[in-house]
Amino acid sequence: MKVLIINGPNLNLLGTREPEIYGTTSMESYLENLKSEFTSHDLDYYQSNIEGEIINRLQEDNFDALVINPGAYTHYSYAIADCLKNIKKPKIEVHISNIYKREEFRQKSVTAANTDAVLSGFGMDGYRLAILSLK
Amino acid sequence: MKVLIINGPNLNLLGTREPEIYGTTSMESYLENLKSEFTSHDLDYYQSNIEGEIINRLQEDNFDALVINPGAYTHYSYAIADCLKNIKKPKIEVHISNIYKREEFRQKSVTAANTDAVLSGFGMDGYRLAILSLK
Amino acid sequence: MKVLIINGPNLNLLGTREPEIYGTTSMESYLENLKSEFTSHDLDYYQSNIEGEIINRLQEDNFDALVINPGAYTHYSYAIADCLKNIKKPKIEVHISNIYKREEFRQKSVTAANTDAVLSGFGMDGYRLAILSLK
Amino acid sequence: MKVLIINGPNLNLLGTREPEIYGTTSMESYLENLKSEFTSHDLDYYQSNIEGEIINRLQEDNFDALVINPGAYTHYSYAIADCLKNIKKPKIEVHISNIYKREEFRQKSVTAANTDAVLSGFGMDGYRLAILSLK
Amino acid sequence: MKVLIINGPNLNLLGTREPEIYGTTSMESYLENLKSEFTSHDLDYYQSNIEGEIINRLQEDNFDALVINPGAYTHYSYAIADCLKNIKKPKIEVHISNIYKREEFRQKSVTAANTDAVLSGFGMDGYRLAILSLK
Amino acid sequence: MKVLIINGPNLNLLGTREPEIYGTTSMESYLENLKSEFTSHDLDYYQSNIEGEIINRLQEDNFDALVINPGAYTHYSYAIADCLKNIKKPKIEVHISNIYKREEFRQKSVTAANTDAVLSGFGMDGYRLAILSLK
Amino acid sequence: MKVLIINGPNLNLLGTREPEIYGTTSMESYLENLKSEFTSHDLDYYQSNIEGEIINRLQEDNFDALVINPGAYTHYSYAIADCLKNIKKPKIEVHISNIYKREEFRQKSVTAANTDAVLSGFGMDGYRLAILSLK
Amino acid sequence: MKVLIINGPNLNLLGTREPEIYGTTSMESYLENLKSEFTSHDLDYYQSNIEGEIINRLQEDNFDALVINPGAYTHYSYAIADCLKNIKKPKIEVHISNIYKREEFRQKSVTAANTDAVLSGFGMDGYRLAILSLK
Amino acid sequence: MKVLIINGPNLNLLGTREPEIYGTTSMESYLENLKSEFTSHDLDYYQSNIEGEIINRLQEDNFDALVINPGAYTHYSYAIADCLKNIKKPKIEVHISNIYKREEFRQKSVTAANTDAVLSGFGMDGYRLAILSLK
Amino acid sequence: MKVLIINGPNLNLLGTREPEIYGTTSMESYLENLKSEFTSHDLDYYQSNIEGEIINRLQEDNFDALVINPGAYTHYSYAIADCLKNIKKPKIEVHISNIYKREEFRQKSVTAANTDAVLSGFGMDGYRLAILSLK
Amino acid sequence: MKVLIINGPNLNLLGTREPEIYGTTSMESYLENLKSEFTSHDLDYYQSNIEGEIINRLQEDNFDALVINPGAYTHYSYAIADCLKNIKKPKIEVHISNIYKREEFRQKSVTAANTDAVLSGFGMDGYRLAILSLK
Amino acid sequence: MKVLIINGPNLNLLGTREPEIYGTTSMESYLENLKSEFTSHDLDYYQSNIEGEIINRLQEDNFDALVINPGAYTHYSYAIADCLKNIKKPKIEVHISNIYKREEFRQKSVTAANTDAVLSGFGMDGYRLAILSLK
Repeated sequence: MKVLIINGPNLNLLGTREPEIYGTTSMESYLENLKSEFTSHDLDYYQSNIEGEIINRLQEDNFDALVINPGAYTHYSYAIADCLKNIKKPKIEVHISNIYKREEFRQKSVTAANTDAVLSGFGMDGYRLAILSLK
Repeated sequence: MKVLIINGPNLNLLGTREPEIYGTTSMESYLENLKSEFTSHDLDYYQSNIEGEIINRLQEDNFDALVINPGAYTHYSYAIADCLKNIKKPKIEVHISNIYKREEFRQKSVTAANTDAVLSGFGMDGYRLAILSLK
Repeated sequence: MKVLIINGPNLNLLGTREPEIYGTTSMESYLENLKSEFTSHDLDYYQSNIEGEIINRLQEDNFDALVINPGAYTHYSYAIADCLKNIKKPKIEVHISNIYKREEFRQKSVTAANTDAVLSGFGMDGYRLAILSLK
Repeated sequence: MKVLIINGPNLNLLGTREPEIYGTTSMESYLENLKSEFTSHDLDYYQSNIEGEIINRLQEDNFDALVINPGAYTHYSYAIADCLKNIKKPKIEVHISNIYKREEFRQKSVTAANTDAVLSGFGMDGYRLAILSLK
Repeated sequence: MKVLIINGPNLNLLGTREPEIYGTTSMESYLENLKSEFTSHDLDYYQSNIEGEIINRLQEDNFDALVINPGAYTHYSYAIADCLKNIKKPKIEVHISNIYKREEFRQKSVTAANTDAVLSGFGMDGYRLAILSLK
Repeated sequence: MKVLIINGPNLNLLGTREPEIYGTTSMESYLENLKSEFTSHDLDYYQSNIEGEIINRLQEDNFDALVINPGAYTHYSYAIADCLKNIKKPKIEVHISNIYKREEFRQKSVTAANTDAVLSGFGMDGYRLAILSLK
Repeated sequence: MKVLIINGPNLNLLGTREPEIYGTTSMESYLENLKSEFTSHDLDYYQSNIEGEIINRLQEDNFDALVINPGAYTHYSYAIADCLKNIKKPKIEVHISNIYKREEFRQKSVTAANTDAVLSGFGMDGYRLAILSLK
Repeated sequence: MKVLIINGPNLNLLGTREPEIYGTTSMESYLENLKSEFTSHDLDYYQSNIEGEIINRLQEDNFDALVINPGAYTHYSYAIADCLKNIKKPKIEVHISNIYKREEFRQKSVTAANTDAVLSGFGMDGYRLAILSLK
Repeated sequence: MKVLIINGPNLNLLGTREPEIYGTTSMESYLENLKSEFTSHDLDYYQSNIEGEIINRLQEDNFDALVINPGAYTHYSYAIADCLKNIKKPKIEVHISNIYKREEFRQKSVTAANTDAVLSGFGMDGYRLAILSLK
Repeated sequence: MKVLIINGPNLNLLGTREPEIYGTTSMESYLENLKSEFTSHDLDYYQSNIEGEIINRLQEDNFDALVINPGAYTHYSYAIADCLKNIKKPKIEVHISNIYKREEFRQKSVTAANTDAVLSGFGMDGYRLAILSLK
Repeated sequence: MKVLIINGPNLNLLGTREPEIYGTTSMESYLENLKSEFTSHDLDYYQSNIEGEIINRLQEDNFDALVINPGAYTHYSYAIADCLKNIKKPKIEVHISNIYKREEFRQKSVTAANTDAVLSGFGMDGYRLAILSLK
Repeated sequence: MKVLIINGPNLNLLGTREPEIYGTTSMESYLENLKSEFTSHDLDYYQSNIEGEIINRLQEDNFDALVINPGAYTHYSYAIADCLKNIKKPKIEVHISNIYKREEFRQKSVTAANTDAVLSGFGMDGYRLAILSLK
């Protein structure tokens, strides 16, 4: 199964950005671990700070399942939400921190209703659990 | 008269995206029909999923009239709204579906006040009516 | 095809009422032009300031398509909205001015969701475009 | 590791209650599967329709980790929220359905900020993923 | 005079629960002190985590005055509020912490309007002051 | 036909509680009258101040029709609302006083949408009218 | 006893209007049934789509009790509400559908506080129950 | 000077309607007094319960100054507000009671911004003061 | 009759402050006119920019009737509102401009409910009309 | 211990102002009683109707503990709130009436979060209890 | 150029008040520095805790430019806002701390719209920058 | 010191865009002046209409201090806000116009709390003052 993992804005800085919230592991080394664990999956990773490029990548539609962390776009990008609605594959939304413990604006997700399920607060481990949930 | 038609995010998928709402005609074939009907106009078409690229295109200002469907950006892009405000040409906002019949967030337009007129719910035919309204 | 055009309160004053917003053409002379253009249609016109009389007229149901400008009732008449819901004909809502450029209360329409499509800001020309949209 | 699983009101009816939302598996048979899968864990299950009894059970504090689905109490029980705040064990909140796809009131959780992480929309599988996330 | 003291949910944990907010004194040892100080009063104490059991206890109506700390129920239990309204005895609402310094939801009391007076922020000493206020 | 009548918190005090609002008839004597009038029905009565016990009783599901006055829980118990949603029997919500004439919070019902019909303001007679409405 | 039954806008269409909500019985045939059942009452019926005509009819004040379904005016006609306030007779508000199951705007009644009691969701049978409630 | 005095719905009942608020003087006898006092003015009086008839009367435009009490329509009739906007004569809005002392909805006027000045709370005397303010 | 006229902050600048709104007459010369017209009254005038000094002056209570223009304090001074509530004399609130035509914050008055009547939009003439209304 | 007692606007009228709410005891005679009871304390009293003078008095900072009833300023004076925040002495906020039983605006305190504790509804006795709470 | 610098309530305590927010420099010593730097300007300083005294000082109008930090009055004093509106000199609003990083109520300024420009978060240096901005 | 100046969407049009608000100076010529004035600084300029490209540029982190005018993104880009939060350099937010004098939506800044200080309304001079504020 081909799994596309998408990270939104500022998530390329994982490991150095606000480590008390996001931890000290970089996405790159974490991805190595994921690939070691899920040898039967084909894990494809994409990150962009640009809202419309994330839409472009999603529209390529060359994957069997989606794991997406839209970062700050979670809270206002109806454009990404529309794009997700059109995808007929398993799709999981992941947030590294527990968004309910943070600012008011982070507790509203405009994209979640267009995914199948949501994980929040498991740290980097959220990506692994999301993949585990795929049949 | 040179008419610029701009479509925002996910509108490159017209014809296959949620056809029960947006119909089964692709924008490309529809444009062919428009060009056949309006032979005295020069119809220029641009689509992008990226908010800022739409602004870039608008700032080129090489058209006599504008027909724009900002897609989901309609509902939150004050950046596009600011850009439209600065354009001193006839400008019409088009929505394929009747936005009053859909989700709450689609009933607010931050861009419409900076256009001359709005068409909503005529399906693809909205683009044709918009051009008809131009003198 | 028999097309009923309905205008709501104060719209009998078109041509003299706030001409900087609504223009200087009277509805009567405009109707003459419409009839000249659409010779294959039977255009029927009705105006009333009384909410309930508009409902009575709509309930006669002796038309094939409806073009309605409910005027100020647009913004609070759930009674007209209910009545429109019961009509199973093509029905278009027209506003002469761009309601998004005006007072806050004019940006809410309680009737629009019970029509097929909405035109706003085309001046008197909105009625003509509405008829053009009918098959 | 001793894991306490708590279900709130009406979740004793899983399998027969609104199966189009909650599925057709009963909690009892599902628990059997969990116990088979997690043989190194000691899984303890408690369900109550009574808010205060859930608090009583939590205060016993005889567990190493908590998986809780507070059901409808999620949305207004500050009493359970206060109780959770006082527990210094790993604690995961689970919702069977994707709460972002449902009624407005279900999109607010007053308890989630006092847990470590939240899972929503994985069906019954959410409980399994929650246990997997525990070290 | 027979004084009933009622504590709501999680207040059985006083002394160990969030001591930086609620202090390190247990209710039991504090009650001993109160009884020593108010030898002419008959102090009766009741605590429950269950909303309806608090109502049951209040309806027994075998007391001359009431000192109540409804805990988290303060903020949403209209059922306890209705019950308090029906009691024609002196009744004082006590909060250990200053609720104005805490979360937004704690600054609204649905029960206070049905008591005679409210004390907030005096620590455990609030119960003593409440009894002192009784004639 | 077996009819279950459920009363929520503080409704065991009917006859003495705020008689200017709820009247001076006790529920017990009123039930006698109902049984005399509806001899062909089997009337079962249950009252509790505890939210979850009302849910327990509803889940027994040993009745043909339901008449429920959830008392103060009407206004915030999504748990009872969820439970009612799952019951596939005729179900009528009754309020003794006219809730529209009382405090703001009493004018919102979170349970009514999950019953078939609502009666409010008929005094004790509301229960009788509810039974009369059952076929 | 002379009972005036008033129906507001669009309720003259009962039997054909949205029958999945309002049923297929016309008001006229239903009234025949009511008259057969309540031979000792004098039932007077009035319907109008015009807000002010309903007020005129109410001001005639030639009845002993009132049963009124204000239709869509329920939700915003403060004029009818004022008129009802001035009537010192028993007065019952009836809604055919359960207004709590419908659109948000239908869940607000500006007239109900000026009647004695409200029935909602009993279908046409609501009128019969209202008359039964009159002494 | 010809002064048109318009009263809205239910104001034909002045003298008998809620006399504790509106007093016991009928509009007719009060008008006699006004005419005696203002012999140099031509006072014209019109009352209607029908929103659209008030608009019709205003559109006749055969007066030099306007004194209007729109009654309950004050609070939601954008149709009358639009009509008033179109009148280029001195125009005064009068309320008999002090609307700031009454229900919330009466404290909002949608018509006042389209008049020159507002009087509220002077009882019937408000009409006299309004005429006195005219030059 | 001794009439106290109070003006709030910035009203000492009448005549020069925003003359397009407040006119070009100074309060001093206007007062001379008032005194000439109302020779049987004893007119006392007080102005202060300081909220508490206005309260001090009101508490002296050496007048038979009050005409007050609280200026900007109208919109937020609950302290002046409390003070007015305690005064048992005829009391009229005056605003020179029509507050309904100005900023949102000027359309709310926290003091008006504690006066007998309100005049707004008559220019300086409002003070004269207020005195005329006193018996 | 030197205790400063501060009363805000209109509280110099205690004993005569709205006695049904505030009682018939004057502050002066009440202070005499307090001084008799607390002979080991040095009680200093200050009252002003002027917001900034209360701040001036607080900034003198010549006291060991503070008992303050800010009166109406409680509800909007961020200036007094800022001043209180800077005081590092025991400080108690007192309200004579139970503010939860009164108008909506009185149920919000902008100053309370900057005091240690709050007493509301004990009548004049609130000042005595506040002093008793000081160590 | 004569520059008036006005500080509002509690700003006389700069240097000792909440130094983690406002720093440890007193306004007096800071003013000395300013005067040394701007020798060609005439710097006039005024501070008051009393809202109306600030208005009095502003009305003297004996300056060429204004630098004002209204302190807590920024957030609710429409009286100062009105006064500022009337001043036709360059006028700059200064806040020592970054108000966007603080409490919700500090993020609204009712005075800023009546000044030319706003500086926030530069510490004491804000006053210097404000003067530098003057031509 | 290396200072990065960033301008957001539509700010490349300074000099021609809405000159009554933004003035007639182009950014390019203005930058020349800045460079002449601050010869000891290294001024780096970047403008983009694309939200994510601004984030990309900020993440390069090759500067000692930041002056940013996010344009319309100020009001909704949580993505830029998150990015700013992660930058540990002096950072100043600049707005050319006084945002408090403009539309409601421009009065909220989601980015300002993640900068050190804010300047608004100084015209182009704001950039110069921002640089002056850097040590």
